Amino acid sequence: MSELPTIGVLFGDPSGIGPELIAKLLSDPAACADANLLLIGDRTVLARGEAVAKKTLALNVVDSIATATFIPGQPSFLPVSMIADTQIEPGKVTAASGHYAFSLLGKAAVAAKAGELDGILFAPLNKAAMKLGGLLHDDEQRYLKEVFEVRHFVCEFNVTGQLWTSRVTSHIPLREVADSITHDGVCDAISIIDRSLKAAGIVRPRIGVAALNPHAGDSGTIGREEIEIIAPAVETMKARGVDARGPLASDTVFIAARNGGFDAVVSMYHDQGQIAMKLMGFERGVTVLGGLPVPVTTCASGTAFDIVGQGIANVEGLKQALVINKRMAASNLSTGRARSGITPRMGGGPNKGATK
Amino acid sequence: MSELPTIGVLFGDPSGIGPELIAKLLSDPAACADANLLLIGDRTVLARGEAVAKKTLALNVVDSIATATFIPGQPSFLPVSMIADTQIEPGKVTAASGHYAFSLLGKAAVAAKAGELDGILFAPLNKAAMKLGGLLHDDEQRYLKEVFEVRHFVCEFNVTGQLWTSRVTSHIPLREVADSITHDGVCDAISIIDRSLKAAGIVRPRIGVAALNPHAGDSGTIGREEIEIIAPAVETMKARGVDARGPLASDTVFIAARNGGFDAVVSMYHDQGQIAMKLMGFERGVTVLGGLPVPVTTCASGTAFDIVGQGIANVEGLKQALVINKRMAASNLSTGRARSGITPRMGGGPNKGATK
Repeated sequence: MSELPTIGVLFGDPSGIGPELIAKLLSDPAACADANLLLIGDRTVLARGEAVAKKTLALNVVDSIATATFIPGQPSFLPVSMIADTQIEPGKVTAASGHYAFSLLGKAAVAAKAGELDGILFAPLNKAAMKLGGLLHDDEQRYLKEVFEVRHFVCEFNVTGQLWTSRVTSHIPLREVADSITHDGVCDAISIIDRSLKAAGIVRPRIGVAALNPHAGDSGTIGREEIEIIAPAVETMKARGVDARGPLASDTVFIAARNGGFDAVVSMYHDQGQIAMKLMGFERGVTVLGGLPVPVTTCASGTAFDIVGQGIANVEGLKQALVINKRMAASNLSTGRARSGITPRMGGGPNKGATK
Repeated sequence: MSELPTIGVLFGDPSGIGPELIAKLLSDPAACADANLLLIGDRTVLARGEAVAKKTLALNVVDSIATATFIPGQPSFLPVSMIADTQIEPGKVTAASGHYAFSLLGKAAVAAKAGELDGILFAPLNKAAMKLGGLLHDDEQRYLKEVFEVRHFVCEFNVTGQLWTSRVTSHIPLREVADSITHDGVCDAISIIDRSLKAAGIVRPRIGVAALNPHAGDSGTIGREEIEIIAPAVETMKARGVDARGPLASDTVFIAARNGGFDAVVSMYHDQGQIAMKLMGFERGVTVLGGLPVPVTTCASGTAFDIVGQGIANVEGLKQALVINKRMAASNLSTGRARSGITPRMGGGPNKGATK
């Protein structure tokens, strides 16, 4: 097998801007370099994307993932028959499109678990459609966690420009946040982004850890989580050789990061990170599903049902998601992790995803 | 008395960049138009500011605030003897400088309460110095609230460019935020910024109200405060004729505001607003102490002890703070509020500050 990583590429939701983004992406020679890209999907979805993007792709058609042979610089294509053209309703949330999106994600994950893919890149999904289409998990990351049989902590990273973020808590009510901040939780969030950034090529990631309270608690007068939980967790990670700093007031840590002071910020709750990342242009950014055995990345923007078919959807986020995916997959390959199914461990019990 | 508003101008902390900023500000003819500016402070502090800013101000020296007569376009100066030159230690937190700053703030407030000033503009203060110097309140706003004998809700606004923000809760631990969000609290925060924006010249302010929980609670699945408290409060304010909209997800409301969709955002907690405002350049913004009988404004940046005396401190924030102050003071005058001591009321008990 080639030394280049093999990356599965998916249309995402066929009713959204995914097909046109994929057609734009794969018509860019730079995007197709340095990896074997394997597009997996229906010919009819491809044709729709090509028509909107006004591109005709020259694809190397293959019969299966396991037996595929690749041609340097040319994307490959595994046609499947998952959806009929008449089932596709552009701009609409449908069970058919949702089922299509999440079942192909599952197919790619199964192949990755078997060592046949070194990374997965998908164009935008639609959660509501996937739930209509049979997704029983809260989101695609939890679904993939189960497919990969991963037991340890996983976390969605947001990447804008050079800045990555992870978070200790995510989709929970604000009133539950403070009680959900634990020493191990903070350590996990620091550790997972440290490892992922290293896989993405940053030798010694500089990680800023946000505080929970205003003014970082102001020496304990506005909350004590900084003193009792976050600072000790940062010390624990420093003792493990990680360049973590904090807790830092959340209204200044992102300024420092934007000015180049950090490669990543670990936030304590959803909006703390998202307010900053969206203002810094995350709508053109990248989402990385961190903690899985292979890199799984996508663009931060969604299915954009309002502009489907107009050919105006911006492909930059997906391009950047592919750049990150290739870098992480190559790093995994070079350390022998992905092909052997071994992923870096963290936290508690046995990592079944690593020992299948 | 002139139809122009009379605005008291203060050096703030004499050990910080305040004196040089004031010298720069008052040497700008545009800043000195449309109001009677009355600088109150020591000659030695003025001399230090002029030396750093390389400006010599032509000031109309007066004997007292009450008896001052003003010359159009020329700033006036009331010299006081509050600090000796040898007591000033540039770049240091000292009791002498802190006492100076907060006692002149009190002097200006007493004059405003007596109808002698229509607004107060101060250069940066230093909280630690003021506390060393005898300030017993948590901050200058609570001190002024007491001096003005105001009983109703007061709130610091942050202004960046055209965007204003107020908040329902401020310097409290994050774990106490959810329980501190009440119907009346949300209404107060909307109402106070609506009135202040009107005073600043916006006829019908468009106010975006941030949600508390991620994704604005996602229809109640990630917290119910949006449904039970914030949305009803927004409806209450709409019924009172205010153009309030929300609750809106906090990671998108600031994007909408930045794109011109709102004149103000009401945030639920400190960092929610501050993360956004600082990323949007609030360090060059304006702070308005809202809810007092006269406009009290300052620049958002602090005493900047690290650059004192270098002449590089940026005066744009203070200039903009003066622009807002003049506009609000003129509006107060035109409606006959400030000179009569009557301030718009809100909330509960009798407003003693309004009826002295």
